[in-house]
Amino acid sequence: MRRLEELTRNEIIQIKKTIDDKYEEYKKEKLSLDMSRGKPCQEQLDLSRGFFENAEPLISRDGIDCRNYGQLTGLPEVKELFASLLEVEVEELIIGENSSLALIYDTVARAFSHGVAEGATPWGKLEKVKFLCPSPGYDRHFSICEFFGIEMITIPLNEEGPDMDLVEELVRNDETIKGIICVPKFSNPTGIVYSEETVNRLAAMKTAADDFRIFWDNAYMVHYLSDKRPVLKNILKACKEYNNPDRVFIYTSTSKITFAGAGIAVFASSKNNIDYMTKLLSIQTIGSNKINQLLHYRFLKSVDGIMEHMEKHARILKPKFDLVLDIFERELEGLGIASWTRPEGGYFISLEVMEGCARRVVELAREAGVTLTPAGATFPYGKDPRDSNIRIAPTFPPLEELEKAMEVVCTCIKKAALEKMVE
Amino acid sequence: MRRLEELTRNEIIQIKKTIDDKYEEYKKEKLSLDMSRGKPCQEQLDLSRGFFENAEPLISRDGIDCRNYGQLTGLPEVKELFASLLEVEVEELIIGENSSLALIYDTVARAFSHGVAEGATPWGKLEKVKFLCPSPGYDRHFSICEFFGIEMITIPLNEEGPDMDLVEELVRNDETIKGIICVPKFSNPTGIVYSEETVNRLAAMKTAADDFRIFWDNAYMVHYLSDKRPVLKNILKACKEYNNPDRVFIYTSTSKITFAGAGIAVFASSKNNIDYMTKLLSIQTIGSNKINQLLHYRFLKSVDGIMEHMEKHARILKPKFDLVLDIFERELEGLGIASWTRPEGGYFISLEVMEGCARRVVELAREAGVTLTPAGATFPYGKDPRDSNIRIAPTFPPLEELEKAMEVVCTCIKKAALEKMVE
Repeated sequence: MRRLEELTRNEIIQIKKTIDDKYEEYKKEKLSLDMSRGKPCQEQLDLSRGFFENAEPLISRDGIDCRNYGQLTGLPEVKELFASLLEVEVEELIIGENSSLALIYDTVARAFSHGVAEGATPWGKLEKVKFLCPSPGYDRHFSICEFFGIEMITIPLNEEGPDMDLVEELVRNDETIKGIICVPKFSNPTGIVYSEETVNRLAAMKTAADDFRIFWDNAYMVHYLSDKRPVLKNILKACKEYNNPDRVFIYTSTSKITFAGAGIAVFASSKNNIDYMTKLLSIQTIGSNKINQLLHYRFLKSVDGIMEHMEKHARILKPKFDLVLDIFERELEGLGIASWTRPEGGYFISLEVMEGCARRVVELAREAGVTLTPAGATFPYGKDPRDSNIRIAPTFPPLEELEKAMEVVCTCIKKAALEKMVE
Repeated sequence: MRRLEELTRNEIIQIKKTIDDKYEEYKKEKLSLDMSRGKPCQEQLDLSRGFFENAEPLISRDGIDCRNYGQLTGLPEVKELFASLLEVEVEELIIGENSSLALIYDTVARAFSHGVAEGATPWGKLEKVKFLCPSPGYDRHFSICEFFGIEMITIPLNEEGPDMDLVEELVRNDETIKGIICVPKFSNPTGIVYSEETVNRLAAMKTAADDFRIFWDNAYMVHYLSDKRPVLKNILKACKEYNNPDRVFIYTSTSKITFAGAGIAVFASSKNNIDYMTKLLSIQTIGSNKINQLLHYRFLKSVDGIMEHMEKHARILKPKFDLVLDIFERELEGLGIASWTRPEGGYFISLEVMEGCARRVVELAREAGVTLTPAGATFPYGKDPRDSNIRIAPTFPPLEELEKAMEVVCTCIKKAALEKMVE
């Protein structure tokens, strides 16, 4: 294929006509395909079949009746399991309800109402609070920031993680910068894994704010697509090494291990932070759902059990990611109008289309019956400065639907680029 | 029995010696009995045996896959069930996670960060926020108020509900009074049910604050002890009748229907309030645990199903309440040193001991191995102005333990009174 920009205007106009016709044909098919969110598919959910079998008796390893009140920070064996998985101590975590997003929200809400530590000024008392937002990133993180009036500063996200020169300079000089919010492994949506150097620099950097926090959403920590298993450095260890032990709040969940929306979520941090958060949590609730914790423990059993279960997910997901990448290669390679990531895990492929075309591509796809994540969603305030990033979520649709959807999307990418070129 | 105050000093000293000896005998038994919290007992929890049987397929009535994301406000059939139970419309409620306390906390937290309605001033921006706290009341409500810096005003709680003359006068004249927090049916701990007149006056009263809210924790709405079933007027209807439709936030849960800490909680209010809260909730979470909702629906089935299930609870609890009342009558009736409530539902008996003796009774009981709810806990800031109220929680211990515990408590009540009298 030749790069489109090398074509003559006449060639462009001719190709544009072919593509426009193809697009109109798709529209006639009255498709209704949803690729907007990173949802697991039915086959993945079926992997947890049997989860509720032999539930009785609902008594924990240590004889705790999981049907009654108690155990504010979680069941001991469940805390041990996730402590092993996250490589932290049992006293360094709290088991929450079904959503790590809700835990992140809670931590931010508490930072605003009560401060991030004993004696710290509540952020709600400050004139301004700013967060660094490596982007493209996760739209729901940005929504939480916006909700609490946090001013978001977009930080370019590279192959190794956020642009650390920029991060270090900003946090050193501006004490209103109170946090950075990250998906450090198989980043949503670019799929990159923060390098060891990035983790070390985040842990070590000097911050003007003494209550600066790293919000570390390790949502895809075991969500590999194959036996390539990139390692993310343990940031809590790094923070201790660099003498900033209380700097990081870590989150993960089983939403994409067992059930999306009915899993269990985990918050990990220094013992100092956990003690503080436990005190605050004791006002908020009597405890999380221990039955769900117990059944998770019985189902997953161990870190090995989790890893084996995740291999089953990978066998379902790998063909979907491969299909998308194959279609992109076949339809777009060499045209000079799009590039995309080839992640080794996580839930997304990040697509870069021609500058100024992302909104148009999403709009065209929608009119042809394919719903994508809204363009701009991967940036703070929903504003992609180059209007070029689109998040592709290949996990939910069956393969045949995915193939059709991606063919439509590729046609839309070409159509938007050609429209731009004949402007 | 003669009233102790009618006895001569010599008689008092003699009786005191007998009681002191009896108390020392109890201490030698090295008891360890916990009556501090309103927890269901094992037999009650066993009523939900079979809850997790035949869980597959985890698909809702309308074909919603409960293992995946979605349904922010809850499963339709679950919303219908609780709308029937609460006598509100389906659009007037949201199904939450496992804890109505956490829902109350959330509502207060949101009131502080974002205000109680579109365009309302966040309470966190105000110099002062006050709540009316009918007392004796629920300690965890008071803890939430204290946590957010709300100034609590103690309101006497009578047989018909809070002293409404006082409530009306206060809210009419003080715009910093933003709320009142109530357990309107089988009140924790006195067991009273708000009268129709009280509900109407709460709904109708003029408030200086235009964002005044009633926090209506209807935790024990179906928790009768017998076929005596006092009716609580529907406060949402009353608020609409009196043209204050947005005034009330209603909470309930299945914590004491199915599983304590693993049930489902419900928030009900005007459609206007629900729409606002849903918008805020959409930032906080992708949705609550729908599998737990689905299994609750299958287990409880209907309002009739709930009522039948609650009759089984009553058959377990009634003998416990009767036992406590019998022992009180046998040991304390006519002595003039204690009075107690005879509730028709709920989880508590409220005990009034001689003024200035509650702390001492709880301390004596603890030293004899019986843990009661801390004295003062039923009042704002943990300060009972008369130091006379003790919350008795008869539900958790088996009958024989309960009998022993209550005998110890009665001895402590006498001992504390006699100590006071010989001072």
